Amino acid sequence: MKKIGFIGLGIMGRPMAGHLLDAGHELVTVKRDKPLVSELADMGMRELDSPAAVAEASEVIITMVPDTSDVEQVLFGEQGVIEGLQPGTLVIDMSSIAPLVTQQFSKRIHEAGGVYVDAPVSGGEGGAINAALTIMVGATEEGFARAKPLLEIMGKTITHIGGHGDGQTCKVANQIVVALTIEAVSEGLLFASRAGADVAKVRESLLGGLAQSKILDVHGERMIQRTFDPGFKIRLHQKDLNLALEGARSLNLALPGTANVQQLFQACAAHDGGDWDHAGLVRALETLSNYEIAKQ
Amino acid sequence: MKKIGFIGLGIMGRPMAGHLLDAGHELVTVKRDKPLVSELADMGMRELDSPAAVAEASEVIITMVPDTSDVEQVLFGEQGVIEGLQPGTLVIDMSSIAPLVTQQFSKRIHEAGGVYVDAPVSGGEGGAINAALTIMVGATEEGFARAKPLLEIMGKTITHIGGHGDGQTCKVANQIVVALTIEAVSEGLLFASRAGADVAKVRESLLGGLAQSKILDVHGERMIQRTFDPGFKIRLHQKDLNLALEGARSLNLALPGTANVQQLFQACAAHDGGDWDHAGLVRALETLSNYEIAKQ
Repeated sequence: MKKIGFIGLGIMGRPMAGHLLDAGHELVTVKRDKPLVSELADMGMRELDSPAAVAEASEVIITMVPDTSDVEQVLFGEQGVIEGLQPGTLVIDMSSIAPLVTQQFSKRIHEAGGVYVDAPVSGGEGGAINAALTIMVGATEEGFARAKPLLEIMGKTITHIGGHGDGQTCKVANQIVVALTIEAVSEGLLFASRAGADVAKVRESLLGGLAQSKILDVHGERMIQRTFDPGFKIRLHQKDLNLALEGARSLNLALPGTANVQQLFQACAAHDGGDWDHAGLVRALETLSNYEIAKQ
Repeated sequence: MKKIGFIGLGIMGRPMAGHLLDAGHELVTVKRDKPLVSELADMGMRELDSPAAVAEASEVIITMVPDTSDVEQVLFGEQGVIEGLQPGTLVIDMSSIAPLVTQQFSKRIHEAGGVYVDAPVSGGEGGAINAALTIMVGATEEGFARAKPLLEIMGKTITHIGGHGDGQTCKVANQIVVALTIEAVSEGLLFASRAGADVAKVRESLLGGLAQSKILDVHGERMIQRTFDPGFKIRLHQKDLNLALEGARSLNLALPGTANVQQLFQACAAHDGGDWDHAGLVRALETLSNYEIAKQ
């Protein structure tokens, strides 16, 4: 049983922390303005005053916060984790943040005597609740070996991609592929519908061939049924593509399709669609063409 | 056993005609400058002087030619099918051509007393050889019922999408989705590789989640292994996206991603890549960024 400091109890973090408590680990977190959710308090989770205090009490730190700057604040800000870090502490960042900055974070944690692991997840709230997350890990062999038993409590497919930052790189690649595949399905179904075909039959036929994708299956169905409740929010996908485009700029990499799909997400946001499921991307294209996919 | 006129004995048409002969049907075709391939001649296929002569001798006409203008020439050109069309003849166009023009063709064939069916295919040379094609059908209920037993000899998944032209519409939608998904996979893997991750592990990890697609599986592997032999040639995909963009123009439909991916195919063609497999699209992006996906 490990003493774990878990920082970031949002939609994803809450069920993930719950699984660790279920497995018998001892968890502490940072005290916030609002009270700790009662399920976690009832299972024995305790609150301490700062990330530094959490670090002092922990053998493992897990962070699950929104963005790069939030991880930086928790680890290196005032009363940050680094100020209370014990020798050999494992720091696992499961947030989705910038790969290049992650390499800097890992360097600073290692210099302070810790072991850094980046382990962003895919699979959304459902994956977190069902402990079925896909987890992409950047770590040394030693870091991966130490993190793996804990990650297996929260996820199903745990892949050691490579060294520090490679987990985050893989996550960004995932979000690029997902966003562009949503556009692929949107444009294909929109064409079919506008040309007068039954899109449900088109989707069905396409699922049998080279056009098959999980997105055509799940998000194609959402586009046809017009159900755009998240799922995964457009505003979060915008954040992830921002990481992709910032990374591409640093690397001198031209990603014209990714840039284009980000603009379509921005068009959705302009129509109050930041909280739509990312399948709602189709609505930006529909708005352009003054036409909506028709159920038949 | 039907008397079938089969016009268009290219890479796809040859094995398709072979399956019909195997099933015991009687086939004729139009005489060309080069001799009939011996496998088909040995199985009893005969040659006649013109499409009109083929139509006079047939209960069913199947066309499998490159483009819209070729179908028009065969059906309605000098000594075309329509000049010899017998009452009630089934005309099945299995080429991939313009959906809107297909509606005009079907009208003309019906006015001349025939029954028109559009039945484009997906699955490439391998699908044709193994009689495993996906066939997308636009037809009346009667037309579909009559064509189905013959299509089942050549394909595996036969879907009646809707009325005249809807088979072609579905095929165009398929090619839009496939092209954009190739770009999705290209940009994702390129980002991962350029950022220093092992792309083979990234591909493997992504196949387990929402980014999964047949294209990530098959074409992602080609991009990593650097094998760009067709497969499906870029110049043919350019033709199909041309149908998409012409159709979109007629329909007042804006397809920014499709337009973009067509430009990338054109960049491939500019580098003598018209005969590469369409996974070679990644090379246009690599050329932009002066970087090639690295095997690790």
